Amino acid sequence: MNFTGQLKEKQDIVNDYLKEMLQIKGAPDRIVEAMKYSLMAGGKRIRPILAMAVCNGLGGNERDALPLGCSIELIHTYSLIHDDLPAMDNDDLRRGRPTSHVMFDEATAILAGDALLNYSFEHILKVVIDNNYASNYIRASHMIAKASGALGMIGGQVIDIQSEGKHISMDELLYMHSKKTGAIIEASCLVGGIIANKEDILGTVMEYSSNLGVAFQIVDDILDCTGDTEKLGKKVGRDEKKDKTTFVKLVGLEESKKLAFEYTRKALQLSNKLDNTGFLEQLTNYLLNRES
Amino acid sequence: MNFTGQLKEKQDIVNDYLKEMLQIKGAPDRIVEAMKYSLMAGGKRIRPILAMAVCNGLGGNERDALPLGCSIELIHTYSLIHDDLPAMDNDDLRRGRPTSHVMFDEATAILAGDALLNYSFEHILKVVIDNNYASNYIRASHMIAKASGALGMIGGQVIDIQSEGKHISMDELLYMHSKKTGAIIEASCLVGGIIANKEDILGTVMEYSSNLGVAFQIVDDILDCTGDTEKLGKKVGRDEKKDKTTFVKLVGLEESKKLAFEYTRKALQLSNKLDNTGFLEQLTNYLLNRES
Repeated sequence: MNFTGQLKEKQDIVNDYLKEMLQIKGAPDRIVEAMKYSLMAGGKRIRPILAMAVCNGLGGNERDALPLGCSIELIHTYSLIHDDLPAMDNDDLRRGRPTSHVMFDEATAILAGDALLNYSFEHILKVVIDNNYASNYIRASHMIAKASGALGMIGGQVIDIQSEGKHISMDELLYMHSKKTGAIIEASCLVGGIIANKEDILGTVMEYSSNLGVAFQIVDDILDCTGDTEKLGKKVGRDEKKDKTTFVKLVGLEESKKLAFEYTRKALQLSNKLDNTGFLEQLTNYLLNRES
Repeated sequence: MNFTGQLKEKQDIVNDYLKEMLQIKGAPDRIVEAMKYSLMAGGKRIRPILAMAVCNGLGGNERDALPLGCSIELIHTYSLIHDDLPAMDNDDLRRGRPTSHVMFDEATAILAGDALLNYSFEHILKVVIDNNYASNYIRASHMIAKASGALGMIGGQVIDIQSEGKHISMDELLYMHSKKTGAIIEASCLVGGIIANKEDILGTVMEYSSNLGVAFQIVDDILDCTGDTEKLGKKVGRDEKKDKTTFVKLVGLEESKKLAFEYTRKALQLSNKLDNTGFLEQLTNYLLNRES
């Protein structure tokens, strides 16, 4: 099967799992509906797929990394809902559809985000119990929580908001993104390594994923500048409008493309140490060349 | 030592633990400041103290229930921050001080809530690891997550918002509060039982705490009607203003007092099965007669 087929197959596995996860019986319909609306809006499912790919590449069973990978996808989704709120980025379009607070209302969007974050950890703890309280699942879970909190993703979001309208340096921009976007991309890959019981190679996993994370964010900035609203599913030019510092703004479009290529190249060099099937390598390249 | 002294002693233990918990190095100052501002605003610490009291009463060491009890306190605090937001209850006073979004701004308040919820689970997983991956800690943690999610506290909040301006019945009101306030009061008591390794008596713990939870909420409604803004630390008459159904509105003040007494009486009958030191009994009475 070619890469596109493999990717589609894994996306289907993730989507099936997420759909099953959200069969929450006994909760008010409106909150479950709002959780599903954002979670099943058709993301690329990069984070769980990274967890699966690294796990498989390191000799584990990719299905074993799926549950925690999907918990990360819930965390990613809640962060988008809250980022889109009027008090934050005030966006009304996401993945080609109205954002949660536009589709429902602000209170529901806040609570749907809260519920997804909470449910992510409820699911994580259920997975730990179902896996006989396995200690590596617990270490992976703790690592996810650190990556998504004030030291990681949320901390990055705070810096992002504080930086609006200010000039920040390349180092500050890299630091902000290493937290805001990088931390849970790294966590996804680390989950794969920990679930494959290869904790001795986590240094390499970290190095691979931090380079991938930077490349991913630079491509995001480029797409916000050159992309197509229809393909992207969100409005282009948002960063400019909000007076946010981006890679493109700091070093220009051509230099940004070179930078994205450079970080991708570093990630590619490491990807083969983590997975010799070629899938992780192709996934890394795909993320550089994506259009959404 | 008398009850007041005992309560104060336990509150000090909780406050010391919470203060220690929030020594988060490496996160942006503003988010840690906002987390501390709401967490250290001087709540009664009922939830961790219930966990400690039940644990101690059932033969465990109350200090063992403290870490998970404090994680519940973080969840309780985040829920207050988000409930107070303009898109939700739009309150500007809490515990005698400006609410988080008034003191900081809306974006920071949303993120501080998110960060407290996330950190609660990060801490829970750290506690599990520090306790040698003990399975009862993991079961207690999973139970907390269920209680605070869409099936519990968040679900109750959704029903609360949907019910504003509508007439709801006594059964619907009881159901809403069993989720919104009741679920994590129950979880606090259950944590005590699980950490004391008395999982066979959880039925009684559940019965005690669900009666306590209803009594607690009725007293809340009474205080909103008859209380003193200064003592209460939040504005009185909020429910009336928001056209929320309360026990007082449904059955009147005198009948509400009788109801609170009746649920407390049921809880008291059970409290002695859980704790023969008298502390849980006195705590139950204290919660009926509190002024804030």
